[in-house]
Amino acid sequence: MLSKNRIKYIKSLSIKKNRYEEKCFVAEGSKTVEDLLSSFVCRAMYGTERYIGIRPDCFELITPAELKSISNLETPQDVLALFEMPENICDSMDVSGKLSLALENIQDAGNLGTIIRVADWFGIENIMCSIGTVDVYNCKTVQATMGALARVNVYYCDLKTCLMKLSSEMPIYATSLDGADIYAAELSKNGVVVMGNEGNGISYELKQICNSKLLIPNYPKGRKTSESLNVGIATAVICAEFRRPR
Amino acid sequence: MLSKNRIKYIKSLSIKKNRYEEKCFVAEGSKTVEDLLSSFVCRAMYGTERYIGIRPDCFELITPAELKSISNLETPQDVLALFEMPENICDSMDVSGKLSLALENIQDAGNLGTIIRVADWFGIENIMCSIGTVDVYNCKTVQATMGALARVNVYYCDLKTCLMKLSSEMPIYATSLDGADIYAAELSKNGVVVMGNEGNGISYELKQICNSKLLIPNYPKGRKTSESLNVGIATAVICAEFRRPR
Repeated sequence: MLSKNRIKYIKSLSIKKNRYEEKCFVAEGSKTVEDLLSSFVCRAMYGTERYIGIRPDCFELITPAELKSISNLETPQDVLALFEMPENICDSMDVSGKLSLALENIQDAGNLGTIIRVADWFGIENIMCSIGTVDVYNCKTVQATMGALARVNVYYCDLKTCLMKLSSEMPIYATSLDGADIYAAELSKNGVVVMGNEGNGISYELKQICNSKLLIPNYPKGRKTSESLNVGIATAVICAEFRRPR
Repeated sequence: MLSKNRIKYIKSLSIKKNRYEEKCFVAEGSKTVEDLLSSFVCRAMYGTERYIGIRPDCFELITPAELKSISNLETPQDVLALFEMPENICDSMDVSGKLSLALENIQDAGNLGTIIRVADWFGIENIMCSIGTVDVYNCKTVQATMGALARVNVYYCDLKTCLMKLSSEMPIYATSLDGADIYAAELSKNGVVVMGNEGNGISYELKQICNSKLLIPNYPKGRKTSESLNVGIATAVICAEFRRPR
């Protein structure tokens, strides 16, 4: 049985400050939890009788009502686990020879989750986030990654400093409405693609560091259309273009 | 001032049955409302003093509190309008020589909105939806299209009958995990791309009608990754691939 203190503790992890103090985050549902088991240290696991997982021996059995009392989901699933946050330190990040993403102040938790899932699909191992980007360990993002968080490293850092350092070694691509047609541009096998905030795009400051600007043209060119694509959608189209065989 | 009956009427349009009885839907925010004005008959428009629109003369001035009482948004914007639903009849749909989308039982309102925005960006004018697809005129979808609904026609129809008829005239593409690599496949300038339900993909019944199956390969091929891409993301990557210059 879950004690009141335990319930209170788990619920408290829905607040960022508490997550970082405890270095602990919550994931739910057998698919997500089991994907994360391969990459993160599991501190605790609570499953109902419906949960028949890959670790049937090491979860605490709780009732559906108890699960409801600790779950962040509208429809709680069968299992909830607490994982240790990894210490992802930018200085030890290995991006040489690889394609990576940098996110500047992405605000929507769902968008961040979608981007991580896209990165996973297209074999992008590392994502650098500006300090102002929404926290990857909030429950909405964790769930939206559908387990992809297990295979993508997310770093929070001073993006300006980080990209300045990398810009001497590899191309830094900005996505921008004044960029060059991505279908005609020369795309490198390595480098960093910078995606900007949902409302404002990439800041002037970061754009100065980028040595190439890319645009996803609409079709047919010049037709009146939406002003932009959603940032998750744009990330996917760009990653697909970088990864398509040439 | 808004009467109680008026407030009740507007709120009632958040229920599908009422929308279809009244042939009326709600859109909010100046960007969305003004995009829709170019394509739909506006039945009423309510703006606060903050609203300085392209139709400054023909909206009813209301207070922020009144807007809050009729809005479906957590943070109401400056204007809300009622639009007449168009009579989109499948039999009169003109898809010959064009690329179109067909959606089978898409459940998530946000996903449908995203797909409409993607269609708009890539110049796809027509989307056929199975009867089981979420209603395009629900407020979450209308808002998620960011005005793109003004430029994309959405039809609800018996998809099987509709695609059967079209399959003799043009390619019908399914997206499927057992499909052919989209980068190697021959893609026609016209045809219909079928996207399936979020959890189950395309039904066996519809797959039989499709004469080509496409897959977005992950990278590098064969690497362990997420099991699938979100349906909005997959739609975007596929549309981009159809539209890229060859």
